[in-house]
Amino acid sequence: MRIGELSRTTGVAIPTIKYYQREGLLPAGTATGPNQADYTEAHQRRLRLIRALLEVGNLSIAGARDVLRTVDDPEASGHALLGVAHRAVSPAPRLSRSSPEWQAAQAEAAELVKRQGWQVEADAPGVAALADGIAALRALGHTEFLLRIDEYAGMAATLARLDLELVLSQAPEGRGGLVEAVVVGTVLGEGLFAALRRLAQEDASFAATGGRSGPAIP
Amino acid sequence: MRIGELSRTTGVAIPTIKYYQREGLLPAGTATGPNQADYTEAHQRRLRLIRALLEVGNLSIAGARDVLRTVDDPEASGHALLGVAHRAVSPAPRLSRSSPEWQAAQAEAAELVKRQGWQVEADAPGVAALADGIAALRALGHTEFLLRIDEYAGMAATLARLDLELVLSQAPEGRGGLVEAVVVGTVLGEGLFAALRRLAQEDASFAATGGRSGPAIP
Repeated sequence: MRIGELSRTTGVAIPTIKYYQREGLLPAGTATGPNQADYTEAHQRRLRLIRALLEVGNLSIAGARDVLRTVDDPEASGHALLGVAHRAVSPAPRLSRSSPEWQAAQAEAAELVKRQGWQVEADAPGVAALADGIAALRALGHTEFLLRIDEYAGMAATLARLDLELVLSQAPEGRGGLVEAVVVGTVLGEGLFAALRRLAQEDASFAATGGRSGPAIP
Repeated sequence: MRIGELSRTTGVAIPTIKYYQREGLLPAGTATGPNQADYTEAHQRRLRLIRALLEVGNLSIAGARDVLRTVDDPEASGHALLGVAHRAVSPAPRLSRSSPEWQAAQAEAAELVKRQGWQVEADAPGVAALADGIAALRALGHTEFLLRIDEYAGMAATLARLDLELVLSQAPEGRGGLVEAVVVGTVLGEGLFAALRRLAQEDASFAATGGRSGPAIP
């Protein structure tokens, strides 16, 4: 198909399609003339994935490029891809990580990983992100969450098993479907679950306060 | 205490403290001279909360201002506060919400809420965020997650009950502690849980692939 049809069927404007090509996110079409190229269904699918990564997953262009490079690498394992997807969606560190408080939080995060028996890389982005959260909660004196953190970890493990089951169910579609499922599951899955949790919190809060809209706190 | 001590004890630079005051995030100190003001422990605590909202919660200045305004409103209920905290951490809509695809996703999200029996406002930000995720998964053809979405919703409900229990356990500290716990739990809790889930996914993936670093996908 021509670029006009690619644009029409995906809802992505032609200048944006050209921008993604310049940024290395979308492969070029097959040249059929000096100013003309032919695009396939693979381009449509890739464009939808790019939009999902950028608009729903909130990835930067550089983050999306890293993820797509691994998707396209025939040597990359599903396990390696999960690491790249995790790194891409992990926020850049915004807390100073040299402070004694952060170091203590990191040790606490490593201790939790050990207690749960989780097999993860020592430099997994999740460990640092966990330490960020622990350090912030300690600084604010909100240690009530930390006292129950193993319960949260247990629920995260249940959730992760379902995540993995769904990702592996894509295997019949072959490598292409599987790697895309890992990325989609990581990037979109977190937003989706956060939305569900907020709705469930609102419901739980409604039940606890009897739905009063006025002051419910002494 | 003087502004220098406030800066030293919180690790926030003096110009940054003044910036937060200009932006309406931090109340002014009590003037003790033409160029001098006195600060209290309440300022220290508020500064730590501001840092947590901005640096760990990734809120914008405007988002943090909305949350803090509700924290300071003696009329606001805990239930109202949860709504403000949810709105502040919800990403701005980036998908077109007028398309028939998005409208269908919104209907699907509303249907799920009904099926779960969740009592939430019709315009709860979670419903729109859920519709965003559903629309993106449908556009990419990754409907495997949607087939099991009620299982995810059930886990979200379990998690939300623990969230609420912990938030309400702050009640002995009075309103100040409770409203802060809602904000902290919402903003930091999501980042913390996302970190735990990624670690658990890495572990589940390690177990499934036997930790092979090479190609694990046919």
